[in-house]
Amino acid sequence: MTESTSSTASPLSFELITTEGRARRGRVTTPHGQINTPAFMPVGTRATVKGLMPRDLAETGAEICLANTYHLHVAPGDDVVKKLGGLHTMMAWDKPILTDSGGFQVFSLPKLKMDEEGVSFNYKKSGKPIKLTPERSMLIQNNLGADIIMAFDVCVPFPCDYRPAQEAVYRTKRWLERCKAAHKREDQALFGIVQGSTYPDLRALSAQLTAEIDLPGYAIGGVSVGEGHQLMMEVVDATEPLMPKHKPRYLMGVGYPEDLVEAVARGVDMFDCVLPSRYGRSGVLFTRRGPIRVTKGKYKKDKYPVDTQCTCYGCQNFSRGYINHLLNSREILGSTLGTLHNITFYQDLMRAMRTAIEEGTFESFRKAFLDEYLSDDKKDDLNLHFNPAEITRDDLSWDTEHSIVPTKQDLRETKSAGTNKTQPSSQKSPSNKASSSEQPKKHKKSRKHYEKRSKNKPK
Amino acid sequence: MTESTSSTASPLSFELITTEGRARRGRVTTPHGQINTPAFMPVGTRATVKGLMPRDLAETGAEICLANTYHLHVAPGDDVVKKLGGLHTMMAWDKPILTDSGGFQVFSLPKLKMDEEGVSFNYKKSGKPIKLTPERSMLIQNNLGADIIMAFDVCVPFPCDYRPAQEAVYRTKRWLERCKAAHKREDQALFGIVQGSTYPDLRALSAQLTAEIDLPGYAIGGVSVGEGHQLMMEVVDATEPLMPKHKPRYLMGVGYPEDLVEAVARGVDMFDCVLPSRYGRSGVLFTRRGPIRVTKGKYKKDKYPVDTQCTCYGCQNFSRGYINHLLNSREILGSTLGTLHNITFYQDLMRAMRTAIEEGTFESFRKAFLDEYLSDDKKDDLNLHFNPAEITRDDLSWDTEHSIVPTKQDLRETKSAGTNKTQPSSQKSPSNKASSSEQPKKHKKSRKHYEKRSKNKPK
Repeated sequence: MTESTSSTASPLSFELITTEGRARRGRVTTPHGQINTPAFMPVGTRATVKGLMPRDLAETGAEICLANTYHLHVAPGDDVVKKLGGLHTMMAWDKPILTDSGGFQVFSLPKLKMDEEGVSFNYKKSGKPIKLTPERSMLIQNNLGADIIMAFDVCVPFPCDYRPAQEAVYRTKRWLERCKAAHKREDQALFGIVQGSTYPDLRALSAQLTAEIDLPGYAIGGVSVGEGHQLMMEVVDATEPLMPKHKPRYLMGVGYPEDLVEAVARGVDMFDCVLPSRYGRSGVLFTRRGPIRVTKGKYKKDKYPVDTQCTCYGCQNFSRGYINHLLNSREILGSTLGTLHNITFYQDLMRAMRTAIEEGTFESFRKAFLDEYLSDDKKDDLNLHFNPAEITRDDLSWDTEHSIVPTKQDLRETKSAGTNKTQPSSQKSPSNKASSSEQPKKHKKSRKHYEKRSKNKPK
Repeated sequence: MTESTSSTASPLSFELITTEGRARRGRVTTPHGQINTPAFMPVGTRATVKGLMPRDLAETGAEICLANTYHLHVAPGDDVVKKLGGLHTMMAWDKPILTDSGGFQVFSLPKLKMDEEGVSFNYKKSGKPIKLTPERSMLIQNNLGADIIMAFDVCVPFPCDYRPAQEAVYRTKRWLERCKAAHKREDQALFGIVQGSTYPDLRALSAQLTAEIDLPGYAIGGVSVGEGHQLMMEVVDATEPLMPKHKPRYLMGVGYPEDLVEAVARGVDMFDCVLPSRYGRSGVLFTRRGPIRVTKGKYKKDKYPVDTQCTCYGCQNFSRGYINHLLNSREILGSTLGTLHNITFYQDLMRAMRTAIEEGTFESFRKAFLDEYLSDDKKDDLNLHFNPAEITRDDLSWDTEHSIVPTKQDLRETKSAGTNKTQPSSQKSPSNKASSSEQPKKHKKSRKHYEKRSKNKPK
């Protein structure tokens, strides 16, 4: 089964190669080459995936990376990026690039003022006032020159009352129309974004309103804001059936390995998240048996690679003991190797899912992967300290203000910020499951919790 | 002219391939391969050259790298390094490695107590008392497992009165005998170190005393402690003629490109310095027309590579504008690219000198290189802020305590620390020449100063 589609003037086409249940194996073609889907897109906020040279990033298997409109507008300036030849030339990355619209970032800023026109805020360092509108986001993204650009949308926090969530859906639709009108470059593909918080009817409404506008791709936004795995999957279930079948579907800012597997099972094609790179820099490394915190004392003399099945340069050459030393000594190489490994792990996972769908074995892969990944044996006390909202949004303070590896002070601050967040206890986040100080029986609970989280199987 | 020598039981041999004047083209053979000399050895203090993966380091042309006894004894511990398979295995660097003895580091520590036995101090983080002796340094270096290990010597500060400098020469000799007796591994080559401060007769005495002990190589230590280019060359002139001709000569902790060229002209074979990596991380990048500070506003939109003649991955792919953005945004990639470029620049310089000596054109190369490198055209106001002692010694606070790129506060602190140092004005350091705030006519002065500094031509 191979079906292909592309809008007449669209620089992007999507080929749906095969499916298994709702899971899709596809291929996106852009002016800078192809992206095999399901795909994970590493995040290079300021036009670099922190700690990696582009050749290292390509080596992970990544076929596309992200950059951030808001951050690049602030520095070096989208005009400077344009002068330096656009993102591809500046970054020396000749594969596809996607820029987000800045919407997600600006909605996390304090002292925000929003009206129908757009969003005003002061850039916190210079105090310089900035106004972002759909038109301005398009202008900036046209200057940056990514292959895929995102609509400027209204992203509501979690939890959110029904009325403001509903208003955000309609405003997002009106802003999408303005984005499409303002978008000037025919070599860039504009994706629309579905909002609607965690309300199934608003998600359905937003999916329909967004799909009314003919675009080369569509995204599910407003997730990964602290709602947790189960609600996130409910959002996908409410949205995905109403999204155009022959266009790529992109779940924004997601997520943990288990989120990726479950969302692929629900028909999602594309993902992005800072999680593997951010975790990698601070020493939380993914393995097929679950994440480990390699900075712990138990790894100090450990001669084994992080994951014996991993083919990354780090796992082929270095021991956990050495990486433990590097990160505990705050050496750059520790962050580089951690990032390289985690992104390779994510790309390997995506590749395995693509192969499984091709071979019609996705359901068994899904079960086998989650069984091993979520098994309780030998799990580290990760003590992650992070609130998922802090992790998955590429926030504006963490990496900029602090050094590459968080200090104890950073972690304390992040932790206290995280625990102050209001969150229904039934929607515990994946990271909370491993916070031992609060949950002594974390492993059993983790397993039980996951089973509860994942009971909503895709239709 | 090819002459070779090796001590009977020595794991290291040195072949003197050819000479031009006092300049020597040679080859050192170790259990982990050959080192073409003159050679520059990048410094990987904590068993990593900051910001580079070993494969990147090999790509610069480096054939050997350094690691530090003191730092590795403190963390992860030389016993841990041994458990992880020794330095080569742990670092995944299968070429030669040299460890220094820790002597240089411990003499920069506060609250130091020295007697005939050794040196006692408190490790500043834990307050744990540590005693380093010749025997202990050998034990640690035997555990680390480098191809070349250095004697534990007495390094006096600059300036130093005659009497303590003389005492240090004799104690260094006694400690060298103890090092040789304590050194247990036949696959590691022990180098002796010549001291004597800036007193020619003490340098000659120390060279003779050291050469009395048969060793596979000899070093000139106690330089790069703030004495400046001219005095450093005078030290080499007083020492080198008394060093064994058929053994490698290693000038420790040196230095600037002009130092390397002038010391090669005086018969030195090996160098190490943190300067190219430390400068690289903070954006001071070497070019054939002199160093530039790429973080300056003038480079923000500069589309050219750092050095159009450079073949490093950075210069082949990225603009000064992008590197300016990366470093100003405190992105790791900026430090990685800066380090990769600077070490490549140093390796290219060494290769060019080796070729010139082979072809009998070293004298003209020396003049042409220095003419271009020290030319005043288009020179940046580098405003380096550093005292050379701060730069060339891999001190114990700078990189550990602060993030990878110095903040303004760091620079202010380093600057004030630097300017408080007592130093005769006639012995201005190379970095001072470019400190514009104090020396408005820096370029003319720089040239004149260099000519003054370099008037002592080798015999």
